[in-house]
Amino acid sequence: MASLLVINGPNLNLLGQRQPDVYGATTLEDIQTLCVAKAEKLGANISFFQSNHEGQLIDAVHGAKGKFDGLIMNAGAYTHTSVAIMDAISSVDVPAIEVHLSNIHAREAFRRQSYISAVAIGQICGFGADSYLLAIEAMINHLSGLS
Amino acid sequence: MASLLVINGPNLNLLGQRQPDVYGATTLEDIQTLCVAKAEKLGANISFFQSNHEGQLIDAVHGAKGKFDGLIMNAGAYTHTSVAIMDAISSVDVPAIEVHLSNIHAREAFRRQSYISAVAIGQICGFGADSYLLAIEAMINHLSGLS
Amino acid sequence: MASLLVINGPNLNLLGQRQPDVYGATTLEDIQTLCVAKAEKLGANISFFQSNHEGQLIDAVHGAKGKFDGLIMNAGAYTHTSVAIMDAISSVDVPAIEVHLSNIHAREAFRRQSYISAVAIGQICGFGADSYLLAIEAMINHLSGLS
Amino acid sequence: MASLLVINGPNLNLLGQRQPDVYGATTLEDIQTLCVAKAEKLGANISFFQSNHEGQLIDAVHGAKGKFDGLIMNAGAYTHTSVAIMDAISSVDVPAIEVHLSNIHAREAFRRQSYISAVAIGQICGFGADSYLLAIEAMINHLSGLS
Amino acid sequence: MASLLVINGPNLNLLGQRQPDVYGATTLEDIQTLCVAKAEKLGANISFFQSNHEGQLIDAVHGAKGKFDGLIMNAGAYTHTSVAIMDAISSVDVPAIEVHLSNIHAREAFRRQSYISAVAIGQICGFGADSYLLAIEAMINHLSGLS
Amino acid sequence: MASLLVINGPNLNLLGQRQPDVYGATTLEDIQTLCVAKAEKLGANISFFQSNHEGQLIDAVHGAKGKFDGLIMNAGAYTHTSVAIMDAISSVDVPAIEVHLSNIHAREAFRRQSYISAVAIGQICGFGADSYLLAIEAMINHLSGLS
Amino acid sequence: MASLLVINGPNLNLLGQRQPDVYGATTLEDIQTLCVAKAEKLGANISFFQSNHEGQLIDAVHGAKGKFDGLIMNAGAYTHTSVAIMDAISSVDVPAIEVHLSNIHAREAFRRQSYISAVAIGQICGFGADSYLLAIEAMINHLSGLS
Amino acid sequence: MASLLVINGPNLNLLGQRQPDVYGATTLEDIQTLCVAKAEKLGANISFFQSNHEGQLIDAVHGAKGKFDGLIMNAGAYTHTSVAIMDAISSVDVPAIEVHLSNIHAREAFRRQSYISAVAIGQICGFGADSYLLAIEAMINHLSGLS
Amino acid sequence: MASLLVINGPNLNLLGQRQPDVYGATTLEDIQTLCVAKAEKLGANISFFQSNHEGQLIDAVHGAKGKFDGLIMNAGAYTHTSVAIMDAISSVDVPAIEVHLSNIHAREAFRRQSYISAVAIGQICGFGADSYLLAIEAMINHLSGLS
Amino acid sequence: MASLLVINGPNLNLLGQRQPDVYGATTLEDIQTLCVAKAEKLGANISFFQSNHEGQLIDAVHGAKGKFDGLIMNAGAYTHTSVAIMDAISSVDVPAIEVHLSNIHAREAFRRQSYISAVAIGQICGFGADSYLLAIEAMINHLSGLS
Amino acid sequence: MASLLVINGPNLNLLGQRQPDVYGATTLEDIQTLCVAKAEKLGANISFFQSNHEGQLIDAVHGAKGKFDGLIMNAGAYTHTSVAIMDAISSVDVPAIEVHLSNIHAREAFRRQSYISAVAIGQICGFGADSYLLAIEAMINHLSGLS
Amino acid sequence: MASLLVINGPNLNLLGQRQPDVYGATTLEDIQTLCVAKAEKLGANISFFQSNHEGQLIDAVHGAKGKFDGLIMNAGAYTHTSVAIMDAISSVDVPAIEVHLSNIHAREAFRRQSYISAVAIGQICGFGADSYLLAIEAMINHLSGLS
Repeated sequence: MASLLVINGPNLNLLGQRQPDVYGATTLEDIQTLCVAKAEKLGANISFFQSNHEGQLIDAVHGAKGKFDGLIMNAGAYTHTSVAIMDAISSVDVPAIEVHLSNIHAREAFRRQSYISAVAIGQICGFGADSYLLAIEAMINHLSGLS
Repeated sequence: MASLLVINGPNLNLLGQRQPDVYGATTLEDIQTLCVAKAEKLGANISFFQSNHEGQLIDAVHGAKGKFDGLIMNAGAYTHTSVAIMDAISSVDVPAIEVHLSNIHAREAFRRQSYISAVAIGQICGFGADSYLLAIEAMINHLSGLS
Repeated sequence: MASLLVINGPNLNLLGQRQPDVYGATTLEDIQTLCVAKAEKLGANISFFQSNHEGQLIDAVHGAKGKFDGLIMNAGAYTHTSVAIMDAISSVDVPAIEVHLSNIHAREAFRRQSYISAVAIGQICGFGADSYLLAIEAMINHLSGLS
Repeated sequence: MASLLVINGPNLNLLGQRQPDVYGATTLEDIQTLCVAKAEKLGANISFFQSNHEGQLIDAVHGAKGKFDGLIMNAGAYTHTSVAIMDAISSVDVPAIEVHLSNIHAREAFRRQSYISAVAIGQICGFGADSYLLAIEAMINHLSGLS
Repeated sequence: MASLLVINGPNLNLLGQRQPDVYGATTLEDIQTLCVAKAEKLGANISFFQSNHEGQLIDAVHGAKGKFDGLIMNAGAYTHTSVAIMDAISSVDVPAIEVHLSNIHAREAFRRQSYISAVAIGQICGFGADSYLLAIEAMINHLSGLS
Repeated sequence: MASLLVINGPNLNLLGQRQPDVYGATTLEDIQTLCVAKAEKLGANISFFQSNHEGQLIDAVHGAKGKFDGLIMNAGAYTHTSVAIMDAISSVDVPAIEVHLSNIHAREAFRRQSYISAVAIGQICGFGADSYLLAIEAMINHLSGLS
Repeated sequence: MASLLVINGPNLNLLGQRQPDVYGATTLEDIQTLCVAKAEKLGANISFFQSNHEGQLIDAVHGAKGKFDGLIMNAGAYTHTSVAIMDAISSVDVPAIEVHLSNIHAREAFRRQSYISAVAIGQICGFGADSYLLAIEAMINHLSGLS
Repeated sequence: MASLLVINGPNLNLLGQRQPDVYGATTLEDIQTLCVAKAEKLGANISFFQSNHEGQLIDAVHGAKGKFDGLIMNAGAYTHTSVAIMDAISSVDVPAIEVHLSNIHAREAFRRQSYISAVAIGQICGFGADSYLLAIEAMINHLSGLS
Repeated sequence: MASLLVINGPNLNLLGQRQPDVYGATTLEDIQTLCVAKAEKLGANISFFQSNHEGQLIDAVHGAKGKFDGLIMNAGAYTHTSVAIMDAISSVDVPAIEVHLSNIHAREAFRRQSYISAVAIGQICGFGADSYLLAIEAMINHLSGLS
Repeated sequence: MASLLVINGPNLNLLGQRQPDVYGATTLEDIQTLCVAKAEKLGANISFFQSNHEGQLIDAVHGAKGKFDGLIMNAGAYTHTSVAIMDAISSVDVPAIEVHLSNIHAREAFRRQSYISAVAIGQICGFGADSYLLAIEAMINHLSGLS
Repeated sequence: MASLLVINGPNLNLLGQRQPDVYGATTLEDIQTLCVAKAEKLGANISFFQSNHEGQLIDAVHGAKGKFDGLIMNAGAYTHTSVAIMDAISSVDVPAIEVHLSNIHAREAFRRQSYISAVAIGQICGFGADSYLLAIEAMINHLSGLS
Repeated sequence: MASLLVINGPNLNLLGQRQPDVYGATTLEDIQTLCVAKAEKLGANISFFQSNHEGQLIDAVHGAKGKFDGLIMNAGAYTHTSVAIMDAISSVDVPAIEVHLSNIHAREAFRRQSYISAVAIGQICGFGADSYLLAIEAMINHLSGLS
């Protein structure tokens, strides 16, 4: 039974309150509820971690080693600036999928650059909460050798 | 019942034969078989079009207007160079999802730039054939107002 | 009696349906009707060609050699990416005028670059259908040695 | 009856004497004579202003407010460097058309950049004196709601 | 006995008529005649394909798989813009040599960039028709393990 | 009665000790004393927060929501690198003014770029401690609808 | 008693009429009235100069030498293009503060570059008319050695 | 007797486990043991601090003031992105030497840029654990006025 | 007998007062006195014009046509920004030599770019007042066909 | 009877020993033997010069004037950095062909830039020793007016 | 017993006389004396070569093959411009360490780029003469398999 | 009595033979004769050195120390690429003036960059042989404290 960790980065704790025209009205709790349901349906365990602190996100990635089979990573704004989180992911033997609520490629130029991409299996962005659900499915398939 | 069109661009007809270390051994027919099964499971119709000709891809996008509810678009190498396909998508009232077999953000610099992104709902890349199946699910959810 | 060829590139067949806030509600047929009237008034013959295929546009430019006295060229999105069409125009001995419906210099950065400009007499952009009519007048004057 | 102001920027007073291989032998007076004839034919009033001083050009644009229905603007070399003239045009409620004698897009790189474009309806360049006549026609059509 | 395919891209059909100061007066037929003689002398079969359509060039590259031992590729203007042709060449198991009539490195900046180079054995440019004959010799040597 | 929060970023705790030729001899406590006096005079409450941790600064911005009427933000070195703090400010409904002790536009190139600017009402820099006092006044005026 | 000169550059004479969504409805006269009141309250003399001519602005800066104790400088669009005004300020021994009505750092890229910054004490922008009043206070404090 | 502080940044806690082909199999503890031996041999005290948190690294640099004679700094991935750590080092009066396990100049482009370099005495990189030992020797020599 | 015009641009009227460490203590009058002596010695007439107004400098260049045999041009800060003065020089049939008091190539990056250079015979910079005297000699030699 | 000079630049003396995966196992002597045979077969004389010194290569190019009919130039690493060798070639009246053992366009970015290209007839690269033999043939044909 | 070669590039012969504020008062002879002592202490032989000629430096690198076990390389200004020396090092089987007297990363931008880095084990810079002594130690450790 | 050294770089030995349209028909000997006459007239000794070898030019600059009072430096193509010659000049206490026969600022972009400028008193270019004579005069004046 696969065990997944969903890591959310800075400002995602405010989801639903922050710029709803860009990020929608769904809260992070809503997303977690949906993720639990999806994981259950696919026979997987799922845990969550959110922090606004780059260092805590790195610690969380480190902590995933040997405890989780896959990472679903929405590094938020650190996606675009954090070489340290990129290195953290490549430092542990846990496959990671990068997700974003919005289509980062259709926004400001600085949001199109992702350090996470270089060390992730793949990227899913633009589908709001569904980005997470699709990532769970993609990770389960990946771990099952289906993709 | 939703009706989807999957459009594949240049060189994807050679899938399974071309650089299997990058793109895998699955053929385009294999992918189509998987897509049909997925669509059926989700209660959707699905059609396919592949061409190596930029103009034919534009024509296919135009032809989708009024006939399909959603586009799954893997524009292949034209992703990075075709303003014309980007304009074609924005010219018709059909939502589009951009897919790629490989994680284009972890490859050569010129593959990280996508003109399709600017006019797509979202992007799914890096999961091989599964990129398409996830996109079908994402599109159905999008059309159902679930994302 | 001067004989002109108006060549329209990708997506212009959808004119009137595509992004009317940018390109207006006039269809390509409307424009052709206006062009015929203008040409008649100025004592010129006028023909039309539209294609979404870069190769067909090149063929059309080649075919103009020896048959037409002037080209009115709206290469659409290929304006910004096609060295091949630029070379086609410089390969035939037919003067060309570049037209655009919208003011391409007031849009996205990638639309401000035109390969066609380097081989055209001049450029007229931003006047909708009137861009074509002004270009016909400009070409007739050019052919009469008036400009 | 429409009232137009043609504004010419630096060095255009020397027209006919300056680099005739680039700009032709026609003088600014010749162009004004042609413009008056064209305006008369189209039932419009037309006035002219030329200055080598950026500040006087700005003053002239300001002065056009409430007195003229349209501006025909050849800002000469200030086209490429003057944010101030760009701001002046956007400060008054008078539509402007940008004209150039030569095809600025086929010359040195620094001449391809135009600050005027961002605030003009459209651009006409490369037709010598005829650029002005076409601009008058384009402006009249624009004011008549024909384009 | 080696079997070669010479592929010519856009505007090369006009050779001899187009900008003779850059490309010389020799026609594409002349070149083909010279190539046949050279191939015969070296004991090789040789075929030719020309198209102004990027898609047809891709199709031709695909078609070479299993039928030809080597490609001589003059992609013309698509050299500088076509990721799709680059991908086509890397999709088939046929070695390719890039040729150009003119010395592309001594021309406009945009002609110095070649997508074809990244997937070709080598490049020969600047020798007019002789570029092709040298490429035939180079390919035969390459196939014989002589280079 | 307006309630303001002054947030100071990394290294500002060392003020008065660090590079006094650039930042002056005033300590952060001195500045706070001056700010309290200014706020009192203008009839406002004022609180202070300093941290060298990007995550704690984000948390502080989040915490301001519903508790403070305005933010005075000196993000220190994070000004130039933190998309996350920028996003934090745009995530809460509290107007922010950006301040800097030194004139960041007259220093190294990388200090001229500010992510904070894009989400702040305005910027005040170069006046040492007075930058804060001016910002308090500006914020009070802003909240009173006076600017 | 300190004596200040407020210099306003191109298009600021149109304030209140020009793009009120960006610059507000306040006129330059309104601002001057507010400045006089502020200066009086702080015990300073204040004079004003506005011109659309770069040369006259330079002359005004030169004229300030020995006559004024401080400059409040809104160089308008010349902020971004005038090395000559920058040099003028550094040629006289009068401290200068740069002001802008709008937050220039949150607008087009070319407005983020300021030549004035390099020779000013500091910059205040984004507070509309209040930018001037804050600058007066900042200058008085600066001249009193309070900042 | 000199007192040194070795500061290690993000992911260095995983040393020996992370990408051994790049960083070797030595753990951070191994390095510390080697450093203690080296320091002892050279008659110096040595302490260690590691954190994945940029803020804690800044705090550690601040804390070194007055307590340590020299810093050996391996800021890990923050080397390339942290203006704040650079400022922290220049805020305290403790000389610093920059070390890296790998030769950062022979890796990805973004790893060649170091903010730490601008405020360090020198840089030693590419020698694995030996980089630290050499830095200890260099610092002792520096503090003894030998270099 | 050759007749020369020395044109000085913005801020040069303040020479001797402005940044003497960069430009020296000599005034513009001193330079003119030296120039007159030099010209006399070489049997030439010499006139002078200085303005801070770009437009007046353009007018002065225009006015030189037919009246002067050579221009000595120190365009000051306009050197780096004025396409209009560059065009003015190329509009008249009077050879020009570019001079600068300081070595502009050893200063800020933006001072190394000169629009004047493209239309001048040559450039002399870095010798203070002597730059002008050398330019007079160079111009006389040039007009005598000696260089 | 044509007389050719083959000039080899830095490190080519080590051929066969240096990075055989990039440059092959053939030594420079081997290449010279092959070249002599090829030249003999084509009825030409051939000489060789190799140096690691840029200045000696320039001297060798100068020395070719009047003594040789054609240069075969492999400037090695100086290809990418030497304006001086480029100028040397353009200083003598001897046609030059640029050769490289490897396909320089498929390697590091800095190897794709060639100063030699701008002054050579053409370029042949990627064929190992055969690059030289093809160049000999190309030069003989060029000298015979066959290309 | 290890045998090392220290190679010094251009201008290092003037050490002690040249810009002592940047490079110190130690002469190259002083450094050599220190190096001999250090090598002796570590049981190694050491030789020295200095030249201002790029070609001689390349020859010296070539000559080290089979004669020396390690290179200590201070290529001076050629560090930043010589692809040829980089290639020379990669052409011989002798490990190299790059040293610099000054911290090249804290100087002009063009000194931060090193071609040597790409082919060296590591880099030591900023410690004056001690950079060499540290490099000797690093090389001995490297050759002993200690790093 | 001042003693000057004129140093000429690569290809200048071919002067009069090389590209006479750019560099004129005067030989280097002619220039030296003119220089001797000029120096004599001004009461100075003058010597000459020319080499195509960067290293020899550096040696010559070094050798000037203590023997010459001033350098006249035409580094030819090394002007644009040699950090080493720049460093050589700053290594000796001899003032240098940079000269060029042609106006390097009106040629290819890569010729507009000069490393020599950063360490020279000034630059004289564009006057053919007269550039040298003017430089002699400038140097004598400089040494006499006249400039």
